[in-house]
Amino acid sequence: MDLGGSRLRVGLVSEGGQVADRIDVPTEAHRGPAAVLASVKSLIGRLLDATDRSRVTGIGIAAAGQIHPDTQAVVYAPNLGWNDVPLRDEIVAAFGLPTHVENDVRAAAWGEYRFGVGRGAQSLVAVFVGTGVGSGAVIEGRLVSGHRNVAGEIGHTQVVLDGLDCPCGQRGCLEVYASGSGFARQLDEALARGVPTTLGEATRGAGARLTAAMVRSHAEAGDALAGEMWARAEALLGLALANYVTLLNPEVLVLGGGVVTAVPALAERLAAAVGSRATILARAVRVVPAALGDAAGLVGAADRARSRP
Amino acid sequence: MDLGGSRLRVGLVSEGGQVADRIDVPTEAHRGPAAVLASVKSLIGRLLDATDRSRVTGIGIAAAGQIHPDTQAVVYAPNLGWNDVPLRDEIVAAFGLPTHVENDVRAAAWGEYRFGVGRGAQSLVAVFVGTGVGSGAVIEGRLVSGHRNVAGEIGHTQVVLDGLDCPCGQRGCLEVYASGSGFARQLDEALARGVPTTLGEATRGAGARLTAAMVRSHAEAGDALAGEMWARAEALLGLALANYVTLLNPEVLVLGGGVVTAVPALAERLAAAVGSRATILARAVRVVPAALGDAAGLVGAADRARSRP
Repeated sequence: MDLGGSRLRVGLVSEGGQVADRIDVPTEAHRGPAAVLASVKSLIGRLLDATDRSRVTGIGIAAAGQIHPDTQAVVYAPNLGWNDVPLRDEIVAAFGLPTHVENDVRAAAWGEYRFGVGRGAQSLVAVFVGTGVGSGAVIEGRLVSGHRNVAGEIGHTQVVLDGLDCPCGQRGCLEVYASGSGFARQLDEALARGVPTTLGEATRGAGARLTAAMVRSHAEAGDALAGEMWARAEALLGLALANYVTLLNPEVLVLGGGVVTAVPALAERLAAAVGSRATILARAVRVVPAALGDAAGLVGAADRARSRP
Repeated sequence: MDLGGSRLRVGLVSEGGQVADRIDVPTEAHRGPAAVLASVKSLIGRLLDATDRSRVTGIGIAAAGQIHPDTQAVVYAPNLGWNDVPLRDEIVAAFGLPTHVENDVRAAAWGEYRFGVGRGAQSLVAVFVGTGVGSGAVIEGRLVSGHRNVAGEIGHTQVVLDGLDCPCGQRGCLEVYASGSGFARQLDEALARGVPTTLGEATRGAGARLTAAMVRSHAEAGDALAGEMWARAEALLGLALANYVTLLNPEVLVLGGGVVTAVPALAERLAAAVGSRATILARAVRVVPAALGDAAGLVGAADRARSRP
């Protein structure tokens, strides 16, 4: 299962990473943790009922939050509105199957490593740029989890000393400059300051929502604010990716997420930035677009449950 | 052996990391690669001749440069003036013992992990700030080498977008702002521009050399240039360390190197910066000063030779 802030995705994942019987429904996080947890159980139950249970070796869950390193409770998941939900224990109690809960971004990185563009790599870093910016790293066949299970938060590396305020409480975080939520914040603040921009009109009205593709297209159409936002986002993403590559010297850098997918040629431009900014030998990294799309977390989590029951 | 740009250090290292019969001589890199290589062999030979050879399991060398991941040749070592010197093969041919060549900074990180302040840690990042800035990481008992054996170059992560020129060809590298060589470059450029500073007088004359401690003390005495250099160095070091911790979430962060050792309270101040800038759970990292001093590379390299013959 992939338990995200907007979608719940569940499916039967084979040893080879094939997904069958996939179900994909809105999370409806506003209904509260208990209701969402009930949905999670109901969906998993539905899938198990329709399956030969003897062939199911475990349950893997990719969850959009911080996962406790020992208990695998969801410690903090702002997009779900969850705090300290004992997810693994709940699922084990309900179904009696070995269960593994992984942070969704790291699960997606693992999915790309096992079944996607990273297969066979000595090491891999996968960075996903969407509403937020997150990442996961695999080194010599092992997922980098960190001492407290929170490794990979590239969105909260600081790319500008004493830069723009980030909702996390820090300043200058990459996510404020280069993500869907960051663009929206920047636009709100610019509009509040009375900065003229064609993005104001474009995002006015019910259901209108700023996207990265809009920032890019308004930048190309000559809007000054959009141009400044886009140029800075691209430059700082390139810098942060290059720094990551310089530190870990991975064989493969996977780029994914809604912003990368939606903006033509962005992956190529970021690859070029890494190729010029990272240290000489490290910049030989192979930069590739993610291959598994929104199934990456699902297959990655399933495989983690299998390899770490 | 620790083969550095200024010193050659060699000793017998026990399984427990104790050093006996240590010899420490100037490298005299100006004599050229062949002469230095001859010194290396002569020192190792001297040590072996004075020892029961049956008790020697291997030779470990920490070398100040990039080491080829397969051949362990020294690919590029600017401080030694070496290019493509087949160091491992030369030592194996001379002594017939299993030999392992490791980058010196990573060897020092490994030394601190095995015998110093990092013993028993789930994961460790060690950062050394001296003439340059380098680092090594150990995750779940494994040294992070990288695909091309160049992981850990924190000195060449870019901390200012389009910042000061770095000799590496990039701009805004940490090493330009916060290292012995970086301070010297900044001072040279300021003097060339005619910036008034008490550091000009202090570094004039034969043998006078700018140190980090001088920058700090002139800053405290009110020199504007020194104050600006120091404040920026400390802030950007804090930022780079926090970003490293945010990405890897290590249990322990080791701080070492000449700048950290020479400047009172710097380690504590950097620990405080990491404690406020890194992501919430990652900032719980234990920040500790390096314990092994200039023996870290020696014992680390020896242990690498033992564990990876």
